[in-house]
Amino acid sequence: MSKIDELARKTGEWLRGGGPLSEVVISTRIRLARNLAGFPFLSRCTEQQRNDVQKLLKEQIERLDLGQELFYVDIDQADELDRLVLMERQLISRQHAEGEGSRGVGISVSETIALMVNEEDHLRIQVLRSGLGLPETWDEIDRIDDMLGASLEYAYHQRYGYLTACPTNVGTGIRVSVMLHLPALKFTGQLDQVFQAARDMRLAVRGLYGEGTEAVGDFYQLSNQTTLGKSEGQIISEFEQILPKVIDYEKQARQALLRDKLTSLDDKIWRAYGMLQYARSVSSEETLFLLSHLRMGVNLGRIDQLSLKTVNELMLSTQPGHLQKLRGERLAGEQRDAIRAEYIRQRLHGPSEN
Amino acid sequence: MSKIDELARKTGEWLRGGGPLSEVVISTRIRLARNLAGFPFLSRCTEQQRNDVQKLLKEQIERLDLGQELFYVDIDQADELDRLVLMERQLISRQHAEGEGSRGVGISVSETIALMVNEEDHLRIQVLRSGLGLPETWDEIDRIDDMLGASLEYAYHQRYGYLTACPTNVGTGIRVSVMLHLPALKFTGQLDQVFQAARDMRLAVRGLYGEGTEAVGDFYQLSNQTTLGKSEGQIISEFEQILPKVIDYEKQARQALLRDKLTSLDDKIWRAYGMLQYARSVSSEETLFLLSHLRMGVNLGRIDQLSLKTVNELMLSTQPGHLQKLRGERLAGEQRDAIRAEYIRQRLHGPSEN
Repeated sequence: MSKIDELARKTGEWLRGGGPLSEVVISTRIRLARNLAGFPFLSRCTEQQRNDVQKLLKEQIERLDLGQELFYVDIDQADELDRLVLMERQLISRQHAEGEGSRGVGISVSETIALMVNEEDHLRIQVLRSGLGLPETWDEIDRIDDMLGASLEYAYHQRYGYLTACPTNVGTGIRVSVMLHLPALKFTGQLDQVFQAARDMRLAVRGLYGEGTEAVGDFYQLSNQTTLGKSEGQIISEFEQILPKVIDYEKQARQALLRDKLTSLDDKIWRAYGMLQYARSVSSEETLFLLSHLRMGVNLGRIDQLSLKTVNELMLSTQPGHLQKLRGERLAGEQRDAIRAEYIRQRLHGPSEN
Repeated sequence: MSKIDELARKTGEWLRGGGPLSEVVISTRIRLARNLAGFPFLSRCTEQQRNDVQKLLKEQIERLDLGQELFYVDIDQADELDRLVLMERQLISRQHAEGEGSRGVGISVSETIALMVNEEDHLRIQVLRSGLGLPETWDEIDRIDDMLGASLEYAYHQRYGYLTACPTNVGTGIRVSVMLHLPALKFTGQLDQVFQAARDMRLAVRGLYGEGTEAVGDFYQLSNQTTLGKSEGQIISEFEQILPKVIDYEKQARQALLRDKLTSLDDKIWRAYGMLQYARSVSSEETLFLLSHLRMGVNLGRIDQLSLKTVNELMLSTQPGHLQKLRGERLAGEQRDAIRAEYIRQRLHGPSEN
């Protein structure tokens, strides 16, 4: 069984479902964009140079002492399903999964660390934690950055800071992303208001799989847009100002639902449970939508025959890549929706009719 | 317990669920519009005349020997809930339930016969049967019409036939209505085509509760529009020409679904079952919509832990009047939707969570 096969059978860090304030904050993620001084940016690299970048970085990555096992995946040689699985686990970006040319990723077995080689920049360091934990996540990525920086020469400009392929990343090269579950704000119609406040603080609001993806199932990523002219500390502290407010709004909205709209709330939660137990065909989008309601139900103590662990596991295992991986076969869309429904029914120990 | 309280606890003839072709034909209904020669039409009656009409007709109705017990309800003295229950059972029209002034209805205990007094006309005779049965229904209503006609003088014109309050009923005064369940034609998108064919034959397509009501849950009534210039026999024979075709189209559509769209079909059926078992709030319209899918599931043998009897019972008992009657209290909209959901869960022996 390959490393990726093993991964696909686990819940993964970002859906572990623990960590501080995990009833609202799914995960905290920081990534740093770095490039090597002796090479052109990827868009201007020859194939040979691109290969050399990967060779060099792969060696350094495999030599890192992170206190946990790390394995390297040559993405350009990995099959489509493996790439999809890594993307669904938030270990590589969609761009990295679907791109071309020599590229790879170093992954720590706990999945807290992912080091993408030749994505948009030569190197992207990612640290991911379940729940809210900006300072710890920052400390860890800063430590890894220092370790790699000790043996690599990064492209760095005295005045501009770290140089990156895309100008929006120049400076610190940092992107902080916090994944939030905001079903109650959605339900009460307050979401736009909260997002507007976030945008006023120059934070971007994105869907589950980052840039350009739709928000599905009330899961949203907040991330910084500015990397230049601010220190990493400032960027993180901006997050630390706004996040407690967003979390608090969501919690207040949940309490308001419990107080004033209990029947509607329960209806939403239990219908989702009924649908997941009875559907005979269900898309991954609808599954996330329904699981979002279940997650809220579990978090608010409205449904007790189900654990958060099961909900989190289902969020991942019902994604197209994972589903096909677990099933051990490629499945076309319609067939996949039927198999997904069957898998969910079994997993929820639903009635075994038909 | 009043007669109406007793009725509300039974399934009623039109939802008995038996009779020929009952997998597609819910019920066959014929009504005849009659007026008394010695009185003006209702719109021109004084209150006294209106009272006299009811008194006279009530006496005749109570004297009828129909071979089964018959009871008379003074609609103007009945409470709102009782009127709603009678309407939901198709024993009186919406107009009769919601109208004003002296009026009533004689109902046979089997609910096959209903004799409305002072609805739009002085007298409307209705015979209702579960399933398809035009000749039998006609024979019965003709017999009752003759019995009443023996002791009453109907307003009749040699050339025009029976005279009625509304010119559309002049002539035979007959309206034949067949209630059909056409979920597969809806599913396959062929409904408009079939209805167009019906309209070409001058049949009207209506919803569950007749004129001006929306089609809910794939239940449709086909009824004649012409009463003048044709004999009763001709009108019935027109129905006998088109009905087998409509029924056959629906059956073909069902077979096509079983053959080509089994997963989608099962998905629709089982989701409806899941919804009904898990919802915490459900309107009567949505209930009918979901029960329609369940009915199709039972009829096609796709769901076997449920009988057609239960589905039919639920169709009636979840209607607003019946629900409140069974519960023994008046319920406001939102509360009613919650109580309805609870009632359905209990009735389906669903999991007893919460």
